[in-house]
Amino acid sequence: MIRRLCVVGVGLIGGSLARALRDAGYCSEIVGCGRRVEHLQEAVDLGVIDRFDTDPARAVQGADMIVVCVPLGAMEAVFRSIAPALAADAVVTDAGSAKACVVAAAHRAFGGVPPGFVPGHPIAGTEKSGVAASLAGLYRNRTVILTPLPETSPAATARVQAMWEVAGAQVQYMDVDHHDEVLAATSHLPHVLAFQMVDTLARMSDEDEIFRYAAGGFRDFTRIASSDPVMWRDICLANGTALLAMLDRYRSDLDHLADAIRSGDGAAIERVFRNAKAARDRHNER
Amino acid sequence: MIRRLCVVGVGLIGGSLARALRDAGYCSEIVGCGRRVEHLQEAVDLGVIDRFDTDPARAVQGADMIVVCVPLGAMEAVFRSIAPALAADAVVTDAGSAKACVVAAAHRAFGGVPPGFVPGHPIAGTEKSGVAASLAGLYRNRTVILTPLPETSPAATARVQAMWEVAGAQVQYMDVDHHDEVLAATSHLPHVLAFQMVDTLARMSDEDEIFRYAAGGFRDFTRIASSDPVMWRDICLANGTALLAMLDRYRSDLDHLADAIRSGDGAAIERVFRNAKAARDRHNER
Repeated sequence: MIRRLCVVGVGLIGGSLARALRDAGYCSEIVGCGRRVEHLQEAVDLGVIDRFDTDPARAVQGADMIVVCVPLGAMEAVFRSIAPALAADAVVTDAGSAKACVVAAAHRAFGGVPPGFVPGHPIAGTEKSGVAASLAGLYRNRTVILTPLPETSPAATARVQAMWEVAGAQVQYMDVDHHDEVLAATSHLPHVLAFQMVDTLARMSDEDEIFRYAAGGFRDFTRIASSDPVMWRDICLANGTALLAMLDRYRSDLDHLADAIRSGDGAAIERVFRNAKAARDRHNER
Repeated sequence: MIRRLCVVGVGLIGGSLARALRDAGYCSEIVGCGRRVEHLQEAVDLGVIDRFDTDPARAVQGADMIVVCVPLGAMEAVFRSIAPALAADAVVTDAGSAKACVVAAAHRAFGGVPPGFVPGHPIAGTEKSGVAASLAGLYRNRTVILTPLPETSPAATARVQAMWEVAGAQVQYMDVDHHDEVLAATSHLPHVLAFQMVDTLARMSDEDEIFRYAAGGFRDFTRIASSDPVMWRDICLANGTALLAMLDRYRSDLDHLADAIRSGDGAAIERVFRNAKAARDRHNER
């Protein structure tokens, strides 16, 4: 049970967690924190949070669980603000899509990683954002990856795991660098490729016609390319090393495929397509 | 009305058209043609076609409408087979995803484009294939692009338009080269990028883990990467010029984006992402 939950950044991710925990009766009180009063008031009106404070240090007072759901670029400032105000039993976790940068931010802001800090990443979300899009079932049957550090207290980790399980998620553990590599491959790379494709087409002279004739494959790309640009900019900057390693690998493979198309090498083209289809069908993704 | 419809290649595309026209009572008889008797028998068993012949010349006998729904690489051989057997009033159309190559194949096979030949392309389909996946509603509210040539008889074009409208589609007209450019951008490029991404990830050492942690964006990629490899190989070969022009443009843009990530240029990254999101939201794709 959580006595007082403080959600810093009450958008899709933080709002959905608050809704799930409230529905489960797992929190006595939920305090929201953010920069814009109108968004926080909307969260109160929607019943997602009980009250709010725009000042992080005041918002976390007396909270035994703090979940920081802000863009990666804003993590360090939040950590600095809350550092002097944390309750003695406070557990702090986050929902950032890359973890090495969050751990580095915590190091700088807290002057070392406190035992109550548990880096986390719920693998969930939609292309929508904002508290109005939040829903209690967002994490049901989804994976949350926790990347506790040697300094992290097992009791804090257990409390964060329990919280996510109450929200319906399954918790997995990884080390920080491996998390960042796996996410660069499965999430950051596809988003970057999709954003770039839609940008490329949007700058063509017959843009209107192109978007009008968009078929199935294209729609999937445009959907993920409508994700929040600032959040994804921060992910690219924060997980640049792992993302660039994937991008370099991809660009090299794509160069070879373009060469095969240019030279009419049907066997080489088919090999790539067959391998992709076999992997997809083998893993039976839906 | 169609007296006798011959569908050459009774898979998802041809089978769905046959189902739609049969449901509408628009054909007196539907003859299937293909290479594999077991697939054709399945189409009979499913009620999609009335009878079949594996020999294209026999299959088209007496047909007043022939729809060729075979991979692009098989078009010319089919045209050659049916050329001597066509009824005097026969209209021939196709469902190929690229049109310049089909027109060239028709030129070679028929010795010039016959007035009854109407190149066409239904912008529909799923990642599934085969007659078992066909459904009468596949073309409802979808676009079919026709690219009639100067040699094409307006009466033949009108008959093909009427057929697709009965199947629920909206018919648009384009010239051949423009069709191939628009489709390279909206369909062929995204499929190639997706196939390549899944292939790249499938060749990584931690493939199993990567596919296990796949999130939303990745799933969309893997879905279109499970499309038919042979069909897409043929599209790459047949529409290579337009596709390579798009691929070169994309690769150049992606190189710039990778440079921006490498140098930590957040403003440049955000510009690409904002432009993509704005285009997507402006065109309101779903």
